[in-house]
Amino acid sequence: MRFEDIDTTIQTLGEAKIPSPLLQPTERGGGTYFVDDDERILLHVNQKEVAELKKRDLPAPAFESAGPRRKIYFDPSKLRCALVTCGGLCPGLNDIIRSVVLELHHRYGVKHICGIRHGLQGFIPKYGHSTVDLTPESVVSILDKGGSILGSSRGDQDIEEIVDSLERMHIGILFMIGGDGTLAAASKIADAITTRGLKISVIGIPKTIDNDVYLVARSFGFDTAVDIATQAISGAHNEAEAYPNGIGLIKLMGRESGFLAATAALARQDVNFVLIPEVSFDIDGPNGFLDNLEERVTQRGHAVVVVAEGAGQEFFLDRQTQHDASGNVKLYDIGLLLKDRILSHFQERGIPMSLKYIDPSYIIRSLPANSNDRVFCSFLGRDAVHAGMSGKTKLVVSHWNNHFVHVPMDQVITQRKKVDPAGKLWATVLEATGQSSLKNPTSPNEE
Amino acid sequence: MRFEDIDTTIQTLGEAKIPSPLLQPTERGGGTYFVDDDERILLHVNQKEVAELKKRDLPAPAFESAGPRRKIYFDPSKLRCALVTCGGLCPGLNDIIRSVVLELHHRYGVKHICGIRHGLQGFIPKYGHSTVDLTPESVVSILDKGGSILGSSRGDQDIEEIVDSLERMHIGILFMIGGDGTLAAASKIADAITTRGLKISVIGIPKTIDNDVYLVARSFGFDTAVDIATQAISGAHNEAEAYPNGIGLIKLMGRESGFLAATAALARQDVNFVLIPEVSFDIDGPNGFLDNLEERVTQRGHAVVVVAEGAGQEFFLDRQTQHDASGNVKLYDIGLLLKDRILSHFQERGIPMSLKYIDPSYIIRSLPANSNDRVFCSFLGRDAVHAGMSGKTKLVVSHWNNHFVHVPMDQVITQRKKVDPAGKLWATVLEATGQSSLKNPTSPNEE
Amino acid sequence: MRFEDIDTTIQTLGEAKIPSPLLQPTERGGGTYFVDDDERILLHVNQKEVAELKKRDLPAPAFESAGPRRKIYFDPSKLRCALVTCGGLCPGLNDIIRSVVLELHHRYGVKHICGIRHGLQGFIPKYGHSTVDLTPESVVSILDKGGSILGSSRGDQDIEEIVDSLERMHIGILFMIGGDGTLAAASKIADAITTRGLKISVIGIPKTIDNDVYLVARSFGFDTAVDIATQAISGAHNEAEAYPNGIGLIKLMGRESGFLAATAALARQDVNFVLIPEVSFDIDGPNGFLDNLEERVTQRGHAVVVVAEGAGQEFFLDRQTQHDASGNVKLYDIGLLLKDRILSHFQERGIPMSLKYIDPSYIIRSLPANSNDRVFCSFLGRDAVHAGMSGKTKLVVSHWNNHFVHVPMDQVITQRKKVDPAGKLWATVLEATGQSSLKNPTSPNEE
Amino acid sequence: MRFEDIDTTIQTLGEAKIPSPLLQPTERGGGTYFVDDDERILLHVNQKEVAELKKRDLPAPAFESAGPRRKIYFDPSKLRCALVTCGGLCPGLNDIIRSVVLELHHRYGVKHICGIRHGLQGFIPKYGHSTVDLTPESVVSILDKGGSILGSSRGDQDIEEIVDSLERMHIGILFMIGGDGTLAAASKIADAITTRGLKISVIGIPKTIDNDVYLVARSFGFDTAVDIATQAISGAHNEAEAYPNGIGLIKLMGRESGFLAATAALARQDVNFVLIPEVSFDIDGPNGFLDNLEERVTQRGHAVVVVAEGAGQEFFLDRQTQHDASGNVKLYDIGLLLKDRILSHFQERGIPMSLKYIDPSYIIRSLPANSNDRVFCSFLGRDAVHAGMSGKTKLVVSHWNNHFVHVPMDQVITQRKKVDPAGKLWATVLEATGQSSLKNPTSPNEE
Repeated sequence: MRFEDIDTTIQTLGEAKIPSPLLQPTERGGGTYFVDDDERILLHVNQKEVAELKKRDLPAPAFESAGPRRKIYFDPSKLRCALVTCGGLCPGLNDIIRSVVLELHHRYGVKHICGIRHGLQGFIPKYGHSTVDLTPESVVSILDKGGSILGSSRGDQDIEEIVDSLERMHIGILFMIGGDGTLAAASKIADAITTRGLKISVIGIPKTIDNDVYLVARSFGFDTAVDIATQAISGAHNEAEAYPNGIGLIKLMGRESGFLAATAALARQDVNFVLIPEVSFDIDGPNGFLDNLEERVTQRGHAVVVVAEGAGQEFFLDRQTQHDASGNVKLYDIGLLLKDRILSHFQERGIPMSLKYIDPSYIIRSLPANSNDRVFCSFLGRDAVHAGMSGKTKLVVSHWNNHFVHVPMDQVITQRKKVDPAGKLWATVLEATGQSSLKNPTSPNEE
Repeated sequence: MRFEDIDTTIQTLGEAKIPSPLLQPTERGGGTYFVDDDERILLHVNQKEVAELKKRDLPAPAFESAGPRRKIYFDPSKLRCALVTCGGLCPGLNDIIRSVVLELHHRYGVKHICGIRHGLQGFIPKYGHSTVDLTPESVVSILDKGGSILGSSRGDQDIEEIVDSLERMHIGILFMIGGDGTLAAASKIADAITTRGLKISVIGIPKTIDNDVYLVARSFGFDTAVDIATQAISGAHNEAEAYPNGIGLIKLMGRESGFLAATAALARQDVNFVLIPEVSFDIDGPNGFLDNLEERVTQRGHAVVVVAEGAGQEFFLDRQTQHDASGNVKLYDIGLLLKDRILSHFQERGIPMSLKYIDPSYIIRSLPANSNDRVFCSFLGRDAVHAGMSGKTKLVVSHWNNHFVHVPMDQVITQRKKVDPAGKLWATVLEATGQSSLKNPTSPNEE
Repeated sequence: MRFEDIDTTIQTLGEAKIPSPLLQPTERGGGTYFVDDDERILLHVNQKEVAELKKRDLPAPAFESAGPRRKIYFDPSKLRCALVTCGGLCPGLNDIIRSVVLELHHRYGVKHICGIRHGLQGFIPKYGHSTVDLTPESVVSILDKGGSILGSSRGDQDIEEIVDSLERMHIGILFMIGGDGTLAAASKIADAITTRGLKISVIGIPKTIDNDVYLVARSFGFDTAVDIATQAISGAHNEAEAYPNGIGLIKLMGRESGFLAATAALARQDVNFVLIPEVSFDIDGPNGFLDNLEERVTQRGHAVVVVAEGAGQEFFLDRQTQHDASGNVKLYDIGLLLKDRILSHFQERGIPMSLKYIDPSYIIRSLPANSNDRVFCSFLGRDAVHAGMSGKTKLVVSHWNNHFVHVPMDQVITQRKKVDPAGKLWATVLEATGQSSLKNPTSPNEE
Repeated sequence: MRFEDIDTTIQTLGEAKIPSPLLQPTERGGGTYFVDDDERILLHVNQKEVAELKKRDLPAPAFESAGPRRKIYFDPSKLRCALVTCGGLCPGLNDIIRSVVLELHHRYGVKHICGIRHGLQGFIPKYGHSTVDLTPESVVSILDKGGSILGSSRGDQDIEEIVDSLERMHIGILFMIGGDGTLAAASKIADAITTRGLKISVIGIPKTIDNDVYLVARSFGFDTAVDIATQAISGAHNEAEAYPNGIGLIKLMGRESGFLAATAALARQDVNFVLIPEVSFDIDGPNGFLDNLEERVTQRGHAVVVVAEGAGQEFFLDRQTQHDASGNVKLYDIGLLLKDRILSHFQERGIPMSLKYIDPSYIIRSLPANSNDRVFCSFLGRDAVHAGMSGKTKLVVSHWNNHFVHVPMDQVITQRKKVDPAGKLWATVLEATGQSSLKNPTSPNEE
């Protein structure tokens, strides 16, 4: 889908008629900052692309700006909000929880904020998870803790049961922090709410350690993940350099998108091969990975390889597909496959070497956010609150061209954001690593 | 100056006729990435602003995209480059040096890269600083070190002497990493080069720990500075909370712009007052800082105050202006002034309290870059090389609307980037701190 | 006082008759670990010193080992404990609080643990600080927070009022975490308890960021302080190296003992001068600090100086002595004095230079403990509980010759631990820095 | 072997007759620090044990103190030294290299220091590794880098060939940094040197990430390893807490000794089960690990398990023994075994759960040392130099009862240091975790 075909219209529950409590005279030095609904951020910033739209007589598409509105839809004194974190952990979850609660409580005066425990399970009575009252006191010290104080879970739950639960609890705004599975559920929940004629706003905050949500330029927690991944690469590099023909092999998260592997590789520039899901490669053959690795190792004495977990899944095509609780396809372990193939390749060639395999796995996603992500989460949480209070719904708070914007929920789940093999990020990785295409002239995979 | 009045034209030394070495068949998987000179990034992304330009029949201004060109100007085999770091330290200097050297050497095949020691002094014979040969070997391990392996210095040097020196060394591209003083000198150097009819490209990489260079959305090292500043705030908050009526007062860098203070305050959200140069405040009076602080402390038991070094300089107007070696106005110490005033205020009111003053000073800028800044520096350095190799000159590599662009050197030194008191950053700081205007109804400063 | 004159006898409240709950069959793999009262750790480990004692027919003195006893004095089901943190912050306070609470609650079954707020003030009704119930739930997440969840305060309070308060609250064991002022108060409290015929155990845990409590080989938090101080030194070194004739001057804590300055200097070995309270030095004169500094700077181009805040106090002898709330002598600022003297010295000599002054101050002591200190605090807290439960009193838990021991409270407050100018630590600092005596042949200070 | 049977005699190459250069007047403030050969540190510090020795009329054994001697054996101006790092990486290797080089060069005036590349392989011509000149300039900036600038390798090499190499290079002192395999080789090298009548001192510095070298109370790098392991535990704990019936399983290094697992568990106190090689456990059965884990998880909702890689090797007894290049028995992967067994156990019982397996592997050992280890390495390196210069040989520099001492090489390789299942460390782990014996009443392993 091209940007110009994206429907950027944001749904609302109804007219926002109540003057925002943020309008009340606070003697602020900087004046009072509000955003109008017609403030919009262009999707395109490339002059050529804009010019071409013009040629085709198409309007340049733009996302609604996030931020506080002068009029709000909900009466803060009567409003009950719910907050839920779903799917895998991600640095910054607690920062967003804190930011949402502090903004609702201190700025809008909303006193009833309910934390749903263990993701979508928390809505379903049979699991028996109780809810948590969220207050400034209960969130003030959670910044230095990784994970989510609300917990999480994987897997779908019945949409109608979830909406039943929202009705029972008299929730007015539901904040859902989760990945594309969660956002798909959120979209269905919003639809069910509409069908029932309820007035519940559903606001999504996209979460993905892989930085792969479509139309979301930057995901919270990703920068922290790069930080931690860099540590693993640094260790692997030290191991590789120390031993004769030393090889450091690091597996990083990245199911369908290689942003983490590509970005972390640029942070150290000590990496010689980066393998990501978006760019297929050959393991064998004259220009395959193994021969290239052998050349590097025998010429330079060591090598560092970073592989994203979703890379090279085509090498497992003969095996049966399995799924996890969330319905995600279970990935085969490309890290262990490469480890085995490297070991046997060098053994066959009679070249002594020393391979160190490092899989930081969950460490990447379960530690507290760094400062950069904290600042980002502070904005995300507050803008989610502003969006909900104004009666908007079925949207996610996104970051686009350096601005916080509202994106309709259905748009972000149409596809994943991918590393563009022809774009600047991958080109820079190729420059930094000096790696070749790793494809044989007539690769069987491409025939 | 409004964006639409900015001249975005980039100067060149002449026609780039030599096919780039990056074009040579490398069997790259992702195709080869090149940028054309007519790829441009819009300065505006706000739909309204673009619409208004259209109404006024003005073209939307756009910056030239940074990146590798298909044709280059310099013959790599004969080219000599020089690199200099000037002014105050900043996390990431060594990352940029490394990135420039690796790109020049490995990708373009430039073998003569000369490091100038101690900033502009390094060009002037009387200082006697020798130069350093920069090779992949000499830069490979400098990543984990803060500071600059080339050193730096403050202060102007004679432009003609600098150009003499460039001529003597047969330099083709001069990379200058520095703040606005350095960029002003770079601009004059470029002009003197033109006057002499020389073919030397001058490429600037803007450096500012205060994140205050105009038309540069993000400066390298700033994110690391926020990280370290956050640590100081965290310590101050712990001190303040521990003692009855505890006050933590942190002074942070920020001569004319309060980005560091404002951003670091958002990272912890433990801060109750942020004072920056862009927003004036009263110390005394019914809504002045001291009475507000007293109210917070007596009601909540503790308070944290972050002050940028350039804030409140109007309180020193009666004192004589002094300048440092670079000609910068020496700032009076607002941190110590506030410390004294707070102590005497509480003593006068007979309120026992415990004040802890923390000034992390140079720690903020002299430590190694974090991963985020490292990735950023990796791009900056490579794009600086691409710009220079293509024969462009008198430009800085900047980041704008999430893209790397070329900005004419003269444009970035016309003014400083400031925190907009009516914008989102400051509004969010006000929300997070809950601080009032800190201005009295008829403040004498405003009369 | 020589070790052989130290009275190592530990006071008890009475016979410990109750079998320890730790004795109950727990099917432990490692058997059950208990310490008998006659397990003792020798004060001397130097063979010569032991031999000399033998010659003089003196018994080798030994401290009672810390650890769980088979019989305890207090009935856990009826026991109420109190915990207070006093004086300056120190990394690890929350770790000790957590360790004490978890051990009392989970292992001994003590359910009533009372946290006293804001140090000794918390006992005195007029301050109006309420107490805090300490439970496993309330302490489980405090590890990642610096400071003390109980807060602290400086200054003495009336001993009888404190004991009144203990009586009112029916406290059986009082855990006091504090420096030598606090331990002196603790000793008086224990005496007042004896005078009143009460059965309250007073257990001290020595706290000192300066690592200067006598008979305590290692203080909690010190290792973390070294970590943080090292960061400041690293920054100062980068600053010094970068500028022509660059000087980095770092002031570190260390009122009467220079352990922090000396140890942090060894961590980087980038330091050229270390100035501590234990070793006097001349500022002026042919072998004074300034001339030595000038020599180093002019020969090597840069220098790094670390000064402990208590060093060189003799240079302020003409000024009036002031005291802080705890009655400590207020130190004059040797850091600022040296800064001024260095600046004027180089100006007088006409030598251009660049001085960077760094005072990390409270950052050193207000951040969370590192892993090493956490493990140490875990042991300290548990051993404090074991000591108290067994009915011992008026002791501190100390670390001596790598073992945790009980030391009578009165012994540790007789003097401060100092860096031995003739010992290995200082000799190694001199080797690492290469600094001279910094004393003139006939120094006026020594006449 | 009991301590009293240890032969603590240190071999020397001959009489040390040359006055130490450290004696030369340096105007040191603290006097000059030297250690006499009869300064000795007692092995025992427990009063009871010493008393018992006395009863048995045995002398209390003592290690020679490390440190500078007044007389040295080698003439610094003619001396050539070699330095080699062997076996697995360990944080602090570069710190020791730096400390040895700086002390030799600056203090003793030794100018020829040769770095052997890639461990013992570096001595053997067939590998073709060249040597490296080590100078203050080449080591000054290596502190911030993990690994070893000299590299390393695993496996034995021919002793005679090594000594041939030392002869060819005219080496006077060989510093060997390595684990017990290396120290065994060092011992044989020293013997071959004696047989050949050469005058080469062999000084060992014990390296073990497992902290398991006998008679070495503390190994360099261990504290850093605990730091990093703690991060992994923290992540696992966050994962476990977040999910319903969440289990975090962390595998840590520790082939034969569980110090790392036990110590890191105490640093967080978030761990519920610690499994180490020294304490056998049952997986199945009513009090086996799985049933205990199930109980914990179902009652408390989550659990964290730390397993040392060498734990539970008895569960693999039916499999064939394999060896690695160094001749070490290849361990079977207890982490993966437990992962599989936990998954199938909960599946069989029909209990939904979420298991996260974290194996930080080489990250633990390949990162730079923390400040604490840096200070320790600074002492170790200098004391190794002092020992070698004085003509002593076949010794290791050890840390015992808080003092640096010389221990004969042959003594430290007789056995490994183990966690004492009846000692304080393990008892405290049991207290902190609350774990049971994990042994069934009539465990088949014990029959």
